Amino acid sequence: MRLSRYFLPVLKEDPKEAQIVSHRLMLRAGMIKQQTAGIYSWLPLGFKVLRRIEQIVHEEQARAGHIPMLMPTLQPADLWRESGRYDDYGEEMLRIKDRNKRDLLYGPTNEEMITDIFRSHVGSYKDLPLTLYHIQWKFRDEIRPRFGVMRGREFLMKDGYNFDLTKEDALHAYNRHLVSYLRSYERMGLQAIPMRADGGPIGGDYTHEFLVLAETGESEVFYDSQITDLTFGDRDIDYDSVEECQAVLEEFTSRYARTDETHDEAVYAQVPEERRRTARGIEVGQIFYFGTKYSEPMGAMVRNSDGAQVPVHMGSHGIGVSRLLGAIIEANHDDKGIIWPEGVTPFHVGIVNLKQGDNSTDAACDAIYAELQARGLDPLYDDRDERAGAKFASMDLIGLPWRITVGPRGLTSNKVELTSRRTGQTEEVSPQEAIARIAQIYQPVLGVTVADK
Amino acid sequence: MRLSRYFLPVLKEDPKEAQIVSHRLMLRAGMIKQQTAGIYSWLPLGFKVLRRIEQIVHEEQARAGHIPMLMPTLQPADLWRESGRYDDYGEEMLRIKDRNKRDLLYGPTNEEMITDIFRSHVGSYKDLPLTLYHIQWKFRDEIRPRFGVMRGREFLMKDGYNFDLTKEDALHAYNRHLVSYLRSYERMGLQAIPMRADGGPIGGDYTHEFLVLAETGESEVFYDSQITDLTFGDRDIDYDSVEECQAVLEEFTSRYARTDETHDEAVYAQVPEERRRTARGIEVGQIFYFGTKYSEPMGAMVRNSDGAQVPVHMGSHGIGVSRLLGAIIEANHDDKGIIWPEGVTPFHVGIVNLKQGDNSTDAACDAIYAELQARGLDPLYDDRDERAGAKFASMDLIGLPWRITVGPRGLTSNKVELTSRRTGQTEEVSPQEAIARIAQIYQPVLGVTVADK
Repeated sequence: MRLSRYFLPVLKEDPKEAQIVSHRLMLRAGMIKQQTAGIYSWLPLGFKVLRRIEQIVHEEQARAGHIPMLMPTLQPADLWRESGRYDDYGEEMLRIKDRNKRDLLYGPTNEEMITDIFRSHVGSYKDLPLTLYHIQWKFRDEIRPRFGVMRGREFLMKDGYNFDLTKEDALHAYNRHLVSYLRSYERMGLQAIPMRADGGPIGGDYTHEFLVLAETGESEVFYDSQITDLTFGDRDIDYDSVEECQAVLEEFTSRYARTDETHDEAVYAQVPEERRRTARGIEVGQIFYFGTKYSEPMGAMVRNSDGAQVPVHMGSHGIGVSRLLGAIIEANHDDKGIIWPEGVTPFHVGIVNLKQGDNSTDAACDAIYAELQARGLDPLYDDRDERAGAKFASMDLIGLPWRITVGPRGLTSNKVELTSRRTGQTEEVSPQEAIARIAQIYQPVLGVTVADK
Repeated sequence: MRLSRYFLPVLKEDPKEAQIVSHRLMLRAGMIKQQTAGIYSWLPLGFKVLRRIEQIVHEEQARAGHIPMLMPTLQPADLWRESGRYDDYGEEMLRIKDRNKRDLLYGPTNEEMITDIFRSHVGSYKDLPLTLYHIQWKFRDEIRPRFGVMRGREFLMKDGYNFDLTKEDALHAYNRHLVSYLRSYERMGLQAIPMRADGGPIGGDYTHEFLVLAETGESEVFYDSQITDLTFGDRDIDYDSVEECQAVLEEFTSRYARTDETHDEAVYAQVPEERRRTARGIEVGQIFYFGTKYSEPMGAMVRNSDGAQVPVHMGSHGIGVSRLLGAIIEANHDDKGIIWPEGVTPFHVGIVNLKQGDNSTDAACDAIYAELQARGLDPLYDDRDERAGAKFASMDLIGLPWRITVGPRGLTSNKVELTSRRTGQTEEVSPQEAIARIAQIYQPVLGVTVADK
């Protein structure tokens, strides 16, 4: 994209309403605009990151064998009356009356609706296992929406639901989700630690929250420092293998790691003192097994192999997609602005033309831009007639991980500058080498292809 | 995708509630489920088609230089009070009170909000031209929701908005949209005819609707038969060229084509009698130029080159994304089911195993499945233990354009059957040839890459 044709309304001043760094930087980088309390427009730069995150989630759910679909944002209240949650949910549920005075609500989650879909169409154990998920806008009428997209009212969430014949099968689905989430977060450049959590209003005996460590996190967390040494990496896990998924669960959850809600001083005291850590964490996902909590009252039954009707075992599993942008920025920024991990950056590389209007500099920039595009990369070319300092400040603020700086002086010896946003390190290389380096850096990001099983 | 792992709840019986063929077929093919009047879940097969259509829209908007973003589903009522439409809009607007008794609404369209975004961030003619769009769920509280996704209440729409300094520039934006829409619809396998339309509640002097001819269309249309001979084809249009875009507009709108709302018998009578046609049409899009209708009351001004503050010239341009699924099916089906155009089909090809459990037949199917995936194709492999007749009926119903049928008898001479859903024609070819043929057929569909300008 040429910046002269783009819509990137960066702000020079810090917006007063922003209390935390991610909110401030998202406003300053022209990523979001608040439309009313807790409801945001995603300006082009913010939307691009949202799409990258969505894409990673879709790919990793496909790899796990989970099936995408889409439920509507509005739901009939009657479904929630069946489960008993319509009255329980309280003021966070946005209740609506349509023109015919029928009760609707803006879905805060989808256990009831997915259970309704399941019971309408599935009748036999032969159709199991089944995991359906969607990525859809939700609404929770927070009393104090704040921190930008971290605690918005209208928010984008991935929520998935597994249906299994037995508790054992459902726990395998739980483990599959844990594995797929670890892989998803790592692709986004995040370390998200699974911590034992509390069931809350969804209910559930088995549940883990995924937390990203950050000073501005809403939860206090307690953990064994060994846990931050774990990485999922590029393992080839067979998601159908009960043993392989179980081994990942054990590896990532056997050490102490809990939020303040489930923290237990007595158990924590057994961690060697030099490995005990407390910090703040941002919740970016949660997985639940809740058995027949919804299938029994709502009649989601299947025939087992003996012909008997049994309620299915279910779980639900969520990733806070819009919230992740905030979490990624909280964990990846400096005084100058955002530092995007390569996996989610809105543009792969910035091109800064130091002398817009100079024929040979323009031509060199155009050639680099075209060649990067030809290699499947997505560059942002700052072709505005602006001072170099202003161009650098914008690039640093919006946080593209790599920058190619092109000026007439360097070009006389066929050199451009290749700069890492994270380290600030600059190298002088030929334009061709800069392009080749960028292509190599992004090869793992662009090279992801996931086919169905 | 292996059907044994998928969620494809096809219905054997015709659902009673469906009055038109697309609604009936979408229910029978397990594409949608109604959750309450006019509100649908998109089951996996329906969701796949929705995503294909979205992708085409995104690619063609990128080609035209239009910038994607995303506005929220809920909007503050105050914005609509500014434009004066809050009271005008009537009962089709879904009005909501949040827990703090503030007035929200579920957006039926976004002129107000995009104008608010523009005025907050853009101040100079140098930032023009600018066209922003999004694809987002909308709500219109129809008094009689019906015809499935054709007239739902919660529906997915692409709406784009251009901002220009002059009327002349804004009409070029109008023409760009016309060109990009013609190309989008053709990629979806549709002929959508631009017809002179009525401004309606959005207002506007210049407006065209795009109509797909189909017996079940809601509008009566009148046209010169020459118009159905026009195709956009694979033209390389420079969207920045005023002349090239204007020429397309003239080519596609100079012949008589109007809906009953704007039909003029006197003008129609000038069409040679043998070329006069009346038919029914389904509206799948509309483009508007409305000048300063929103920018003046809402204060969306820019400095022009003389330093004077002038209101921007705007237009809005919509494609009914979810409705398109219905329109495509209305125009592409037979007694057995849907016939997807290659550009939007949920899976590219079906593989039918005639003897599941037979080692060599299973192995041949697995090899074909893997090889199609390796070529970037998306096959659906019916690996269920079902009769051949039931497998054929499902494939015909869900309408994949191509089918490869694999059985033990054919394999003895290294043959499989390659069948076209549209013509019913079957050829006996080797598995390798079937794969090569499918890859060749989809080359234009898979080969689309659109880089930013």
